[in-house]
Amino acid sequence: MENSLPTSIDVVEAKTSKIDSVDFENLKFGNVFTDHMMVCDFVDGEWQSPSIKPYGPIQLDPSAKVFHYGQAIFEGMKAFKDDDDQVWLFRPKENINRFNKSSKRLAIPEFPEATFLEGLELLVNLDRDWVKKGRGNSLYIRPFVIATENGVSASPSNSYKFFIICSPAQSYYSGEVRVVFAEEFSRAASGGVGYAKAAGNYGAQFYPTNLAKQEGYQQIIWTDADTHEFLEEAGTMNIFFRVGDKLLTAPINDRILNGVTRRSVIALAEENGITVEVRRVPVKEIVEAAEKGELKEIFGSGTAATINPIKGFGYQGKKFELPEPSKPYSEFFKSKLMDIQYNKTEDKFGWRHPVKA
Amino acid sequence: MENSLPTSIDVVEAKTSKIDSVDFENLKFGNVFTDHMMVCDFVDGEWQSPSIKPYGPIQLDPSAKVFHYGQAIFEGMKAFKDDDDQVWLFRPKENINRFNKSSKRLAIPEFPEATFLEGLELLVNLDRDWVKKGRGNSLYIRPFVIATENGVSASPSNSYKFFIICSPAQSYYSGEVRVVFAEEFSRAASGGVGYAKAAGNYGAQFYPTNLAKQEGYQQIIWTDADTHEFLEEAGTMNIFFRVGDKLLTAPINDRILNGVTRRSVIALAEENGITVEVRRVPVKEIVEAAEKGELKEIFGSGTAATINPIKGFGYQGKKFELPEPSKPYSEFFKSKLMDIQYNKTEDKFGWRHPVKA
Repeated sequence: MENSLPTSIDVVEAKTSKIDSVDFENLKFGNVFTDHMMVCDFVDGEWQSPSIKPYGPIQLDPSAKVFHYGQAIFEGMKAFKDDDDQVWLFRPKENINRFNKSSKRLAIPEFPEATFLEGLELLVNLDRDWVKKGRGNSLYIRPFVIATENGVSASPSNSYKFFIICSPAQSYYSGEVRVVFAEEFSRAASGGVGYAKAAGNYGAQFYPTNLAKQEGYQQIIWTDADTHEFLEEAGTMNIFFRVGDKLLTAPINDRILNGVTRRSVIALAEENGITVEVRRVPVKEIVEAAEKGELKEIFGSGTAATINPIKGFGYQGKKFELPEPSKPYSEFFKSKLMDIQYNKTEDKFGWRHPVKA
Repeated sequence: MENSLPTSIDVVEAKTSKIDSVDFENLKFGNVFTDHMMVCDFVDGEWQSPSIKPYGPIQLDPSAKVFHYGQAIFEGMKAFKDDDDQVWLFRPKENINRFNKSSKRLAIPEFPEATFLEGLELLVNLDRDWVKKGRGNSLYIRPFVIATENGVSASPSNSYKFFIICSPAQSYYSGEVRVVFAEEFSRAASGGVGYAKAAGNYGAQFYPTNLAKQEGYQQIIWTDADTHEFLEEAGTMNIFFRVGDKLLTAPINDRILNGVTRRSVIALAEENGITVEVRRVPVKEIVEAAEKGELKEIFGSGTAATINPIKGFGYQGKKFELPEPSKPYSEFFKSKLMDIQYNKTEDKFGWRHPVKA
């Protein structure tokens, strides 16, 4: 794959902006989109000239393969504005890299990485007024690609459409989160697509999650599909368990998403002398730690929530509540991450990426 | 769920037909669509008035959930025309029933079964000139439903669009088919969505299938994701193994599609005194049977191909060719099925469903 496309990115600006119609104090996550989007078509065996143009609907034939065969993948990333109005992306190359790993697994042509980053920066800069200052405010960025060929034979599409769309986001507060450990349903098979941000991985979780909600849980922590004995991830977040003063998190495998926030937490833990054991996490161990009062925290890590503390969990019909920790790791990591994201601290790891104005 | 919607189906006929532009002697599977389609929207918590209208494109927001979360399912069924110009559906209620089972697993509202069948019959009758006479000719019917709500939060959609589209099909000949037994990749997890016709199940198979094609195989026979020791299904077909004079096929579980053609083959086998053992089929047993010359046939069953004979298979880098059987079961079942589908024989099982003219 070439790193960049030979053509330049065509920019067509929207005639008017929707920004004045948006209530930035009352945003629902992922519901409002900025004035522009990046699009690029794959036809005749190659990616064509990309463009940035006014955000708007697309027209597809009812037989387009994305509707029938779920040949689609996405990424989630964020941009932040610092006190000097500089806009920053957080580790964008990690997401671009994973976007192409997901594409490959879904038999979708990879997108040239330099053109991806160039278009992303142009787009975010064009819509920079949508990135609001203030801790918690951000621009949620959704790159995705869909199979657009017409026809209902079950084979890879010959044509695709790449998009980047952006949605202003406020501090993510999902209420008190309790989770249930999966005992029956599964998210991913070994040898499957669990490690990819494949569209179908998400729709498949909605029904079991609805059942969990009826039991009073907001999310499911998925276990391995073979035995349901090991805790893996939460579908939109990786998961950390604090037992005593050390953290446990599952190792990456082909069922688990290799989270950028997860890796950032591990790096920050190492930097700050917090032990992280990256190893299989038995359900039994966590339940026993909870019973002994040694389970201090559970938290999820992901782009949307950054760090999401979990108040309790359910397993085999029993409900466990976690104590209120005095100095929660979840707060510590969230604060450390946000300091870097909002340019409040030195960027030792080189995670901030400036968006040129 | 109500069995039928309270409203009648609105029919808007196409002003002109595309039928004269179609070369019915050279159809590529699933590539040409008839003049009309059935559509129905789910909004405000219920299915609205369905309609049959000219086949044409649809417009969606780039944030529509189907693009991001693969919340979409489908069915595949066929209509046949007999020598007296009567059009018949084959076991349509089985597909409608499975459509709703798939919907439920993907957290999609189920579609009222009587309205589904009523609309299907109206649509097929309106486009009956597209159903060509002659053994092998058929109308392939693709009902599907997609999540249409705008917004990129990972939760079930509040709105959906139901479609039935139809494509004229010729006798399915896919060339000589050789398969490879999966050793590394998997199609479905226990506790997952493998038993549903979920869109994402199909896109997830494209990459491993591409790799298999590079090795000279057209399809993969998937094995259980845990051990890869048991043969399950082929992604678009259920699989039968003939060892000596008996047939083996895997039992239905939550990883395997409950194929209508599979059940029809089992019923026909019973009727004709052919033993079918529905049980786990170890890879080892099939390889040993092949080595001893006892493996007489492998064939797939599915709506598109009806019965698809398989010439050979690969396992652990070794290629096995099957002998040319003198009276192949695959031919026997295909012929029996087609006799019923084209109204050439008595319909003992009640599988034919007439489309009212």
